[in-house]
Amino acid sequence: MITLKSYLRGEWVEGRGELATLFNPTTGEPIAKAGTGGIDLKAALEHARAEGGPALRAMTFAERGAVLKAMSKAIHEAREELIEASILNGGTTRSDAKFDIDGASGTLAYYASVGKQLGDKKTIVEEPEQLGRGARFFGAHVWVPLRGVAVHVNAFNFPAWGLAEKAAVALLAGVPVISKPATATALLTVRVMEKIVATGAVPRGALQLVAGSTQDLLEQLGPQDALAFTGSGDTGTKLRGLGNVLARSTRVNVEADSLNAAVLAPDADDETYAMFLRDVSKEMTQKSGQKCTATRRIFVPRDAIDRVQSDLAERLADVKVGDPALAEVTMGPLATAQQRDDYRAGVAKLEASGARVVFGSATEPDVIGADAQKGYFVGPVLLRADAPATANAVHEHEVFGPCATLMPYEDANEVVELVARGGGGLVASVYGDDRELLSTLILGLAPHHGRVLVGSKKVADQAIPPGLVLPSCVHGGPGRAGGGEELGGERGLRFYMQRCAVQGDRALLDKILG
Amino acid sequence: MITLKSYLRGEWVEGRGELATLFNPTTGEPIAKAGTGGIDLKAALEHARAEGGPALRAMTFAERGAVLKAMSKAIHEAREELIEASILNGGTTRSDAKFDIDGASGTLAYYASVGKQLGDKKTIVEEPEQLGRGARFFGAHVWVPLRGVAVHVNAFNFPAWGLAEKAAVALLAGVPVISKPATATALLTVRVMEKIVATGAVPRGALQLVAGSTQDLLEQLGPQDALAFTGSGDTGTKLRGLGNVLARSTRVNVEADSLNAAVLAPDADDETYAMFLRDVSKEMTQKSGQKCTATRRIFVPRDAIDRVQSDLAERLADVKVGDPALAEVTMGPLATAQQRDDYRAGVAKLEASGARVVFGSATEPDVIGADAQKGYFVGPVLLRADAPATANAVHEHEVFGPCATLMPYEDANEVVELVARGGGGLVASVYGDDRELLSTLILGLAPHHGRVLVGSKKVADQAIPPGLVLPSCVHGGPGRAGGGEELGGERGLRFYMQRCAVQGDRALLDKILG
Repeated sequence: MITLKSYLRGEWVEGRGELATLFNPTTGEPIAKAGTGGIDLKAALEHARAEGGPALRAMTFAERGAVLKAMSKAIHEAREELIEASILNGGTTRSDAKFDIDGASGTLAYYASVGKQLGDKKTIVEEPEQLGRGARFFGAHVWVPLRGVAVHVNAFNFPAWGLAEKAAVALLAGVPVISKPATATALLTVRVMEKIVATGAVPRGALQLVAGSTQDLLEQLGPQDALAFTGSGDTGTKLRGLGNVLARSTRVNVEADSLNAAVLAPDADDETYAMFLRDVSKEMTQKSGQKCTATRRIFVPRDAIDRVQSDLAERLADVKVGDPALAEVTMGPLATAQQRDDYRAGVAKLEASGARVVFGSATEPDVIGADAQKGYFVGPVLLRADAPATANAVHEHEVFGPCATLMPYEDANEVVELVARGGGGLVASVYGDDRELLSTLILGLAPHHGRVLVGSKKVADQAIPPGLVLPSCVHGGPGRAGGGEELGGERGLRFYMQRCAVQGDRALLDKILG
Repeated sequence: MITLKSYLRGEWVEGRGELATLFNPTTGEPIAKAGTGGIDLKAALEHARAEGGPALRAMTFAERGAVLKAMSKAIHEAREELIEASILNGGTTRSDAKFDIDGASGTLAYYASVGKQLGDKKTIVEEPEQLGRGARFFGAHVWVPLRGVAVHVNAFNFPAWGLAEKAAVALLAGVPVISKPATATALLTVRVMEKIVATGAVPRGALQLVAGSTQDLLEQLGPQDALAFTGSGDTGTKLRGLGNVLARSTRVNVEADSLNAAVLAPDADDETYAMFLRDVSKEMTQKSGQKCTATRRIFVPRDAIDRVQSDLAERLADVKVGDPALAEVTMGPLATAQQRDDYRAGVAKLEASGARVVFGSATEPDVIGADAQKGYFVGPVLLRADAPATANAVHEHEVFGPCATLMPYEDANEVVELVARGGGGLVASVYGDDRELLSTLILGLAPHHGRVLVGSKKVADQAIPPGLVLPSCVHGGPGRAGGGEELGGERGLRFYMQRCAVQGDRALLDKILG
């Protein structure tokens, strides 16, 4: 069995001692090992600070953008090989694998273009303003890269995109990266990294990969470092609470749990309703529901709930669970045995909280072309809670798999309050065609979300589904979702930069800051 | 003796049980008591959420700005009375009292004008952009006020400005405030609040004041609340590490310790050098050195250090310590007995770390018109450390009083590294006239600071000193300084708002978001 290597200090290195095992979720067979025993991760941090940082800071945004372009191209060119790694270690269908891999190359390409637009500069300067009565004394807010390292701790569900979306932003900002994928699905990340390293385009020390435990790497972070984490709320809380992080004001960005809601407005046009059904069923089952942006709660007008239930059940009945390598299969297994067990326990928790299963079964899916007992297969499940106000777990417990709970509401203010019970989310989607009503929903949901997708007749044929994270829009959410913000074009760079108000002679500042 | 009242739920209420005592720092005599025993602070939080928030959110930015204008006017009109309260409880000279009080009314007036400029809107919308190939599907990032409460925990040194600068920003953003001044100097804050309440301009529940302990108020904060703290790094770390704050992603902004540096460049013109001397001596002694932006470290070229030492000593010799109510006195006592003791211990700590006192005495100042044993008097002290690289405490321990340490440096890169030893600061100042050299200093210092003031010949007659916080520039700093950012005009509002990417039909978004 292969042992995955970490890429540190310009070399591929293998961990010693006890290693973690990676499995094929379709068969339950072990496929690789990974670990960081015996590896000096402090030296990796030092390498990033001593070589990666200075190299990146010496480059202009356009030059950094060119590095991202090369990374994007390398991933795109290796697409077929990477899809295979995704199917093997992630249990994804081809389509789900592409969602991750094309998302990676697409986000890198997008940030390459942001770099090109920012051009031959190394800092970003906001409009200067006169500060006093004298005409010469001015203030200019300038953004400069942090002098430390960006450590990225990613989730198991996007082994390619997770690496790429975070690295793209940090590298463009001028900050070297140490990226740590979830070990369980790190095979694809390591393959992606191999392609990136092979380009020779990335400056020495600018991008390193840890395949396995971070040991005490995070405890070394200081005031000029940044930690970006995607994963469970519990882990996010723990990382944010590290003694050194608290005491030294290390920047932390967390993307965590999210009980994303879809809201159908009472007036929805037929095309809008079709879009709603299409989006909800896709968001429930794409990547077997293992997306932080997947829809978990579905709110519909009380008098429409039976129709929606039957229409969604009809769509879910088309889902074919099984070996994701087969063309006829539309949904693969969950990524790990633990995820499968958590999913089953999660559905039971929702049931105990007042939801009932109205379609599917968490425990006994029909499986095509694989052994249902050996692979980590689950079926899509639609639940329904007729008294949403008291179904606490439905609003608080994220079940990370292909299930969602359908709930009725009476009016716009009530549904805003019900959605807000999620305690802060990544994305909400609303579907309707009455402007007044949509206004109440959008402005009511916005404080609780990083993103709101509005489905309406006019965009039914061109809108993206809510689960798709575009690099041009911010990704993150308040409260339970972690309180973080990533991407959003140039906005995302700010997390890796310090804004400094420079005050002085206008002519001098113009010359120095450009 | 009077007991200070808190202003909560539209009423002035007095605490019961054990109360803290406030003193006159000039005489050591007790002047007031304060406490929150028996007061239901959770009800205050509820009041802010139920009444203050909705009232503010119903107003436009211009309307909120008008509230700030009324607050500013009320403070300005009561200026003389407030100066007396400042002298009595803060031990400030008239000039130092005005710095705080005029800073309060000025910052409120500034944000009133920001509100006026933002006009008849309730949200801030960033430039929308096309998201897909279809011409209709757009994304707009909209800023909306958080639905919770802003709790402000302020430091003892700015009882008026602290309340005003934080409240101005939160209220303009549309978020109700509960403000908690440091109890030791809360007399002035309560007097300011009385003037504000008397205007009748502030909506019910929008602004409350806690005179005394916050009890377990901070433990109640959730995902839509924001906590802004100014004070010691240790307390900042504790607040940021509260279980609920970590788990619920409550926003926290910290302004903490800062070893602010002033750097004299070798080439400085005579006018620039005079500005440097003027700024440094002012920043050492204004408000008896009790400013988070005061200069603590002074770096000068090695061959200039003797001259600088003698010129600074000459200026410090003019400082008259004593009863701040007397016209001839230029520096009052420290605010509390604890601060005095900490100052003396702090100077000793710097001495133990390799600095030596070259002017003044921390323990035995000449005192005019007051009893040196009863009041909390200390003298201005200039220290000098000839081996700055090894004088650790000088870079790490903030002595919160009228002292600073003079140090030599060899070249620009060395001094950038020495300044960075502070681990992140609020403001650095550099004085010089060589553009190349200034460029190295500014871009080198920027990542470690929220602000850099550049003194040069051309602005020597119109620049502000580095310790003055202008509301149009950001205030805060990375690392040891807390990693926070306040003020900065419209920038400051963001901390109290959620940015949400709204995606949908362009025409629809235009109509709903404006």
